[in-house]
Amino acid sequence: MASKSILTGIKPTGQVHIGNYAGMIRPTLDLMASNPDGENFLFVANYHALNSIGNAEEVRQFTHEIAACFLALGLDLSHTNFYRQSDVPEVFELTQVLSSVTPKGLMNRAHAYKAAVDANAEKPNAQPDDGVNMGLYTYPILMSADILLFDGGIVPVGKDQIQHVEFARDIAGYFNRRYDTEFFTLPEHSVQENLEAIVGLDGRKMSKSYGNTIPLFGDPKKRRKAINKIVTDSREPHEPKDPDTNTVYQLYAALAEPAEVAHLRARFEEGGMGYGDAKRILADKLDEMFEGPKARFEEYMADRGELEAMMAKASKGAKEKAAAKIEAMRGIVGT
Amino acid sequence: MASKSILTGIKPTGQVHIGNYAGMIRPTLDLMASNPDGENFLFVANYHALNSIGNAEEVRQFTHEIAACFLALGLDLSHTNFYRQSDVPEVFELTQVLSSVTPKGLMNRAHAYKAAVDANAEKPNAQPDDGVNMGLYTYPILMSADILLFDGGIVPVGKDQIQHVEFARDIAGYFNRRYDTEFFTLPEHSVQENLEAIVGLDGRKMSKSYGNTIPLFGDPKKRRKAINKIVTDSREPHEPKDPDTNTVYQLYAALAEPAEVAHLRARFEEGGMGYGDAKRILADKLDEMFEGPKARFEEYMADRGELEAMMAKASKGAKEKAAAKIEAMRGIVGT
Repeated sequence: MASKSILTGIKPTGQVHIGNYAGMIRPTLDLMASNPDGENFLFVANYHALNSIGNAEEVRQFTHEIAACFLALGLDLSHTNFYRQSDVPEVFELTQVLSSVTPKGLMNRAHAYKAAVDANAEKPNAQPDDGVNMGLYTYPILMSADILLFDGGIVPVGKDQIQHVEFARDIAGYFNRRYDTEFFTLPEHSVQENLEAIVGLDGRKMSKSYGNTIPLFGDPKKRRKAINKIVTDSREPHEPKDPDTNTVYQLYAALAEPAEVAHLRARFEEGGMGYGDAKRILADKLDEMFEGPKARFEEYMADRGELEAMMAKASKGAKEKAAAKIEAMRGIVGT
Repeated sequence: MASKSILTGIKPTGQVHIGNYAGMIRPTLDLMASNPDGENFLFVANYHALNSIGNAEEVRQFTHEIAACFLALGLDLSHTNFYRQSDVPEVFELTQVLSSVTPKGLMNRAHAYKAAVDANAEKPNAQPDDGVNMGLYTYPILMSADILLFDGGIVPVGKDQIQHVEFARDIAGYFNRRYDTEFFTLPEHSVQENLEAIVGLDGRKMSKSYGNTIPLFGDPKKRRKAINKIVTDSREPHEPKDPDTNTVYQLYAALAEPAEVAHLRARFEEGGMGYGDAKRILADKLDEMFEGPKARFEEYMADRGELEAMMAKASKGAKEKAAAKIEAMRGIVGT
């Protein structure tokens, strides 16, 4: 992996929660830290967010929160290009060019679009495209542009996102063949086991839409209360328990160090670990992990002007690379 | 119409012919000349061209030819913002934002897309979307962005293009309602009777795809030969003739001054005008109309560096307006 280019983005569509942390933020930071000689690209996909959020204040707030999160958690700007889509508007010109080489049939096969059409099929009197906006329908092209603009070599994804990278490869291929060039690098996906969803407070996938999230930098007292309300079965402390059907264990397993996780697992299986104790262990662990980052996060969020200035500085490299790539692309397409 | 904003674009997809001149270029120049106190916008839609042309040299050549044509025919840069889409890449960022507010159902109703689907329905074993690229499918959004970016008030169109402006109005409305604003001016179409197709050498609509065009600045001798080959009926010179089923008359009618046209019409109807004489009158008229502009066109085309410099200067106003509009839009959407 060393000296390859790693690229990934995050959509600012809600308050950052520990599911985002365990599933995306931490693995991304680890992956980028493991590639100090390569070129890393991490971006906040603020235009993707417009497909679902029509409120400027929310988009700005969530964008700032994501930036402050990454910075608070130790993102190393010395070897990562960190930017918002809006910092490199060249991505939209590229999207237009990629549209001209992308068959509509490819978009019809996109998972998110197909899911919307399938949901409409269940409703009486609904048309297949009801509720689908063109941003949703075309987002695989914008996502391809996000990747191809920087010749993103390796794109870490969860299993359900492999299609995004496959589409970007397909679309790069359409362009390269049309213009008989190797201008765009064909990206590769790298499936990260830990880029999978983690469970929420109710045992379902942690998701804003289920209202079962734990905010990443929330109030520790409220967090402890929420953990205490996690529903468990009625086994007594001394009884052995199955960790894999146990929300408290699963949350701990997603966050704590491997040795700690193995220890808690053994105690559940052997018997002697009550749910009350386990909840305390989980809450203590979260307090310990996030106390320092939360303080730094709040500092960043308290001075938005300074945060904006940091982001402007961080995006400088990406802006220059994007401008050069688009200049070269114009030569190839004749615009 | 005075002091309103007039906006129109032309797609560089082929050598400029007299159909383009009579149908679009001349009426546009007349309309803009009639609006010296308003703001005029005239652009070369070079990214729209990519939906059908995958050859950089052709796109560049046709773009230069259109620019040189307008300049040779007297486009007044002192009251017209003249630019290529590529001079104002802000239009692509706007396209992205408009996509997020545009229902997919609207695009399904676009004439060009429906025509492609209908054509596929006639073919055995074809899928509805065969041969449709995403540039074609989404072009009404780019076209809306072309208009809305400059708050284009009045958009001159032929009858078959009214839908473009209606879509731009619809999409402006979706944005304005989502953000509770009047940020985008709702454009109005202005149907120009003379923005209709004119006949080609074979009596069908003049079109590159029929191979029946007369190049605007072609060799006068070749032009005269082509006119001499126009198929006519076998009526003798002294017989009365119906001008409206007569390609020679129809071409003359689309190009000459009203008094000249009325004169030729009368002579056909009365009898005494032979097709040979009429062809000579038409060829003489084209020689007279285009001799001066052709010389200027060739001067512009002979120095592409100078042409590029003129275009860069002409686009300065549009660039500034586009940047300001997008900056304001970002405030509204939160990016």
